[in-house]
Amino acid sequence: MTSKVLSRRDLDFLLFEWLQSESLTSRDRFRHHSRETFDAFLELSQQLAERHFATHNAKSDREEPQFDGERVTLIPEIAAALAAFNKSGLFSGAMDEELGGFQLPNVIHRACFAWFQAANVATASYPMLTMANANLLIAHGSPAQIRTFVGPMIEGRFFGTMCLSEPQAGSSLADVAMRAVPSSDGTFRLYGNKMWISGGDHELSDNIVHLVLARVAGTQRGVKGLSLFIVPKFLVDEDGSLGERNDVVLAGLNHKMGYRGTTNAVLNFGEGAHTPQGSSGAVGYLLGEQNHGLDYMFHMMNEARIGVGVGAVSLGYTGYLHAVDYARGRLQGRPVGAKDPAAPQVPIVQHADVRRMLLASKAYVEGGMALVLYSARLLDEQQTASTYDARSRAGLLLDVLTPIVKSWPSQWCLVANDHAIQIHGGYGYTREYPVEQFYRDNRLNAIHEGTHGIQAQDLLGRKVIMHGGAGLRLLVQAVCETVNKATGDLAALGEQLQQALTRIVRITESLWATGDPATALANAATYLDAVGHIVIAWMWLEQAIVAAGKEGDFYAGKRAAASYFFTHELPRIEPQLDLLASIDVSLLTMSEAWL
Amino acid sequence: MTSKVLSRRDLDFLLFEWLQSESLTSRDRFRHHSRETFDAFLELSQQLAERHFATHNAKSDREEPQFDGERVTLIPEIAAALAAFNKSGLFSGAMDEELGGFQLPNVIHRACFAWFQAANVATASYPMLTMANANLLIAHGSPAQIRTFVGPMIEGRFFGTMCLSEPQAGSSLADVAMRAVPSSDGTFRLYGNKMWISGGDHELSDNIVHLVLARVAGTQRGVKGLSLFIVPKFLVDEDGSLGERNDVVLAGLNHKMGYRGTTNAVLNFGEGAHTPQGSSGAVGYLLGEQNHGLDYMFHMMNEARIGVGVGAVSLGYTGYLHAVDYARGRLQGRPVGAKDPAAPQVPIVQHADVRRMLLASKAYVEGGMALVLYSARLLDEQQTASTYDARSRAGLLLDVLTPIVKSWPSQWCLVANDHAIQIHGGYGYTREYPVEQFYRDNRLNAIHEGTHGIQAQDLLGRKVIMHGGAGLRLLVQAVCETVNKATGDLAALGEQLQQALTRIVRITESLWATGDPATALANAATYLDAVGHIVIAWMWLEQAIVAAGKEGDFYAGKRAAASYFFTHELPRIEPQLDLLASIDVSLLTMSEAWL
Repeated sequence: MTSKVLSRRDLDFLLFEWLQSESLTSRDRFRHHSRETFDAFLELSQQLAERHFATHNAKSDREEPQFDGERVTLIPEIAAALAAFNKSGLFSGAMDEELGGFQLPNVIHRACFAWFQAANVATASYPMLTMANANLLIAHGSPAQIRTFVGPMIEGRFFGTMCLSEPQAGSSLADVAMRAVPSSDGTFRLYGNKMWISGGDHELSDNIVHLVLARVAGTQRGVKGLSLFIVPKFLVDEDGSLGERNDVVLAGLNHKMGYRGTTNAVLNFGEGAHTPQGSSGAVGYLLGEQNHGLDYMFHMMNEARIGVGVGAVSLGYTGYLHAVDYARGRLQGRPVGAKDPAAPQVPIVQHADVRRMLLASKAYVEGGMALVLYSARLLDEQQTASTYDARSRAGLLLDVLTPIVKSWPSQWCLVANDHAIQIHGGYGYTREYPVEQFYRDNRLNAIHEGTHGIQAQDLLGRKVIMHGGAGLRLLVQAVCETVNKATGDLAALGEQLQQALTRIVRITESLWATGDPATALANAATYLDAVGHIVIAWMWLEQAIVAAGKEGDFYAGKRAAASYFFTHELPRIEPQLDLLASIDVSLLTMSEAWL
Repeated sequence: MTSKVLSRRDLDFLLFEWLQSESLTSRDRFRHHSRETFDAFLELSQQLAERHFATHNAKSDREEPQFDGERVTLIPEIAAALAAFNKSGLFSGAMDEELGGFQLPNVIHRACFAWFQAANVATASYPMLTMANANLLIAHGSPAQIRTFVGPMIEGRFFGTMCLSEPQAGSSLADVAMRAVPSSDGTFRLYGNKMWISGGDHELSDNIVHLVLARVAGTQRGVKGLSLFIVPKFLVDEDGSLGERNDVVLAGLNHKMGYRGTTNAVLNFGEGAHTPQGSSGAVGYLLGEQNHGLDYMFHMMNEARIGVGVGAVSLGYTGYLHAVDYARGRLQGRPVGAKDPAAPQVPIVQHADVRRMLLASKAYVEGGMALVLYSARLLDEQQTASTYDARSRAGLLLDVLTPIVKSWPSQWCLVANDHAIQIHGGYGYTREYPVEQFYRDNRLNAIHEGTHGIQAQDLLGRKVIMHGGAGLRLLVQAVCETVNKATGDLAALGEQLQQALTRIVRITESLWATGDPATALANAATYLDAVGHIVIAWMWLEQAIVAAGKEGDFYAGKRAAASYFFTHELPRIEPQLDLLASIDVSLLTMSEAWL
C-alpha cells in the first residue's frame, strides 16, 4: 500500500537523483555511511512514524493536554511514541559520534524526521525542539554543560525548550524583561514570565531544559542586553542525578486551534513556588558570554525555523497524499459534455478542477520538500565542504534562504491543506477525515518562530543586503547556474526564471536606493512572496532538469508539476513585482483612523 | 462603544448613501416604510444580534450538538436566541403583509440579517434556511401547503431544511436516488437517505419541514426526473395540530471543523422506524408538478447561495473589526528605524505589514458587503421595478452575479479571517480569542450550497452564455455605466477596470469559440476568480464615486480601500487572464497517474 504520510519515491528522487546525497559518503565525516545506511534510516523512520506517530494524531487533537493546576496530563500514546523515537537513535542521528551520534548528513536526517512531522507534527515537536536545544548547547555550551544536559537529551531523559517570548515581548525581543541576578555561587537567579513555550511543561521526560533569554540586571536595554541561560525544571547534581525542583512553574496552558498535542505554556520564573538551594529565583546557568544571548539563540532559532518549514511541507504533503487517494476513489459526476445520466459516475480525479487543486498541491508540497532538503544539504556543505570558501558560501546562501524556508511552506503548503479539504467536499470539513486537522495544525506555522511579517523584514531588511548584498548575489548566481543547465524543452522555463530574477534584483536595488528603510520595507511581505515563488520555481526547474528524458509516470509527473508551476504559479509574481517597482508607500502614509 | 459585530456606519453608507434604499419607499410595496422604519429594524437587529447571538457564539462552538440515538441536545442559548429572533418579526420582515410580513425591501432585510450571521453564523442558519424554505413554498406551493407549513414558520413553530445531497450524490444531483412512490391518497411515500442536511434534526421547533428532492418511481434518470416533496417530521392534521411522527429519522450528526451550532445530519427516510398512517415510507407531499423539482429547488438554492455569501462576508467583517480593535490596543515593537529601545512600544496598527493586512481585509469585507447588498437591491428591482424590462434585467444580472456572490466572499473574506488570526499573533491561534472560530466557521462557505468548482461551472458554463450572452452583456453594461461616472481622480481607476472588462469579454468569447465545453471549462475556477475580482473592483469604484470629495475619516477610508483594491488586488487577475487567454488544456491532457 502506498503511504499517505509521505512519498518515499519522491524522497529518493530528491535525496539521491537530485541532491546526490550518496556522494557525501566520500567525506570524512560520513565515511561510515552508504546508500544502505541512509536507506535503513529512512525506512526505519517511515515505519516508526506510521506505527507510533500517525496512529495517535487524531486522538492527540481530540484529547488535548490537561493541566489540573499541578500536573500536565497527555494521552499515553505520546510518551510511547517518543520512547520509540528515542530508542531508534534518530535523536542523535546527525550528531557527532563522540557524543553517541551517527553522523548522518543533515539532509538525510531532515528527510527522516519529516516522516515524523508528517505523521504527527505535534508529537514530533518535542524531539524537534530538544534536538535544536541540544545543538545550541553543543555549539555554545561549556563541556560541563554539554555533559550535564545534552547527554541525558540523547538518552531521551531530558527534553528542551526555547524561551523567548513574554506577554509584552512577542515579536519584539528588544523588550524582553526577564531579569537575571548574579548569585554569589556563579549561577544566576531569574525572575519573570515566558509565554508561548512549546513543550514548556509535561511529564514526558525526567527533566526539561529551558533555554531562556533574560537581561542581567543593570545591562543595556534592547537586544544587545540579552543573555542566554540554561534553566532546568529540576536542578542536576554533580553525579547527574536529579536534584531540587527549580522555581520555573507552569502558570497555564494555551488552548490552540490545532497542534494540540504540543503543550504550549505560560511559565513563571522565580515567583517563589519553590526555593531551590534555599533562596529565591529560578536557578539559571549563563551560556557563553553575557549579552550575546540573542546570537546564541539564533543558532536554535534558525534550526527551528527550518524545522517549522519542514513541518509545514510535511503537513501539506500528507494532506496532498490523502487528497489524491480520496480523489481516485470517490465517484461523483461525469465528464463535461457527458449526456447520459445512466452512465456510471467517474472518480473525481478526472474532473479538471480537482486536477487543478491536486496538481497545484503537488507543485506546492514537492517544491517545498525540494527547498527544505536543499537547505539541509547546504548545512552539510557549510559543515563539511572541503574548502573554507565553499563552506562560507553555503552558509551564506542558507542564511538568505532561511526566511523563505520558514515562510513559503507555511503559506503555500497550507493552501495544499485547504485544497485537500475542498477535494474531500463536505467530508473534508468533518473531523471524521484527517484533512481538516492538517489544515488547523499547519495554520500555526506562519505564526511561531517569527511571523510571516518578521521573516519578510529579515529577508528584505537584512539577508539580501548583508555583506554588501553578497547573499543576494549568491542566490542569483545559484539560480543562474540552474538556468544555464536548462536546455531544450526547458530553455523557455529557464528564460522565464531568469527574467523574474533580473527584475527582483533591480527592484531590490531601487527599494534600497530610496535611502529610507521604512519606504523600502513598506511592502516587505510582498517581496517575500515574490522571492519565495522565484525560489520554488528554481527548485522546480532543478527537478525538471533531473527528470528530463526519463520514462515513466513519476518523471512525467515531475515535468507536469514543473510546467504547472511556471504556467500557473510563477506568473502570480508579476503584479507583485509591479507593485514593488512602483515603491508604493500608501501603507505608510495612510491614517489608522481610516480603518 | 463601537460594535465588533458589524459596522452600522458602513451599512448606512451602503444602503442609503450608495444604494439609495430610501427611494424604494416611493414604490407601492414599500409605501408604509420610511427611513425611520428601516433604521428601527437595523437597530433592532443589531441589539438582538449582540445580546442573544454573539453571546453564545463561542459556547455553541465548544459544546456542539449531541445525539444520544434518540434526541438531539443543543445548548439552551440557541433556542432562546431564536425565540427572540422570531418574536422580533424579522423572520417575515420581507414577506407580504397578507402573510403577516412587513414588506421590507430585501436590501434592508439582508442587512438586518447580516447582523445575526456576523454575531453567530451557526445559530442564524436555522432561520436563514427556514426563510428560504418558506419563500420557496410561497412561490411554488399550493394555498393549502402555504397555510399548513408557512404559517407556522412565520410563528416560529416550524423550521425548514433543504434535502438535496445523498452519500452518492453530493455535487452530482443527477444521481439523486431517493425514491418517491405514489400512494392512493394522493401523497407519496419516500425511501432513501439524505446527507449534509443543515438543521436536519433538533428540538428547537415543534416541527421540521424538509424539502426533499426525489425521483418518482419509473421516471427518467438525471436531473430532469427529480421532483420536490414536502416531508414534515411530524404530519400536520387538518386543523394545523401536529399528528403522527413521520418516518424521517436522524441517523447521525456530522462533527464539523466549525459552524458547529448548526446540526448537520444524515437522515433516513422510510426505513420503518415509524409507520405513519399505518403503512411504510415517509409521507411526502408533491410540490408543484412532477419532474420540475430542481427548478423549484433553485428558488431556495439561489436564496441560500446569496445567504452563504452574506454569511461569509459577515464572518470576515466581524473578524476584521476584531483585528482592528486588537491592532489599536496591542503594543509591540517600534517603527522601522527607531533606535532607542527605551522608547515606548507602539500599537501594532502602526506597522506597515499590519496595516497591509487590515486594509486588505477592509477591502475584502466592505467590498463583499457592497456586492451582497447590491444583489439584494437587484432582487428588489426584480420584484418591484416599474417596468417589465427593468424587472427582467435585474433578474438576469442577479442570475449572473449569484455564483460570484456565493464564491468571492467565501474565498476572500476567509482571507480576512486569516489575516485577523495573523494580526493577533499567537493569541489569534488560541481559542481564548474568537478569530480562530470565525476562520473555522467561514471555511465551510466554499463547500456548501455548491462548491467553488460548481459555482465556476455555473458562471462560465451557464450564466455568461445563457440567452446568447445577454447576462454577460448586461454585466458589462452595468460596469461601463460606473466607469463613465468615474471622472477626475477616479478616471484612472475607471480605465483600469474598463481594460480588465474588455479583456474578460474577449476571453469569454475565445474560450467558447473553441467549440469544446471541456476545453472552455478547463480553467473555470480561474475564470471565476478573475471575474470575481473585476466585480469587486466595480463595487469599489462605485463606493469611491460616492465618497469622492466628502470630508472625514470614514470617506477617506473608503477612498483608501478603493485605491488599495486597484493597486494591490485587481492586478492579480492579469496572470489569470493570460492563462485563460492561452486556452491551457494541461489539466485535461494530464494523466492521473502523474499525481
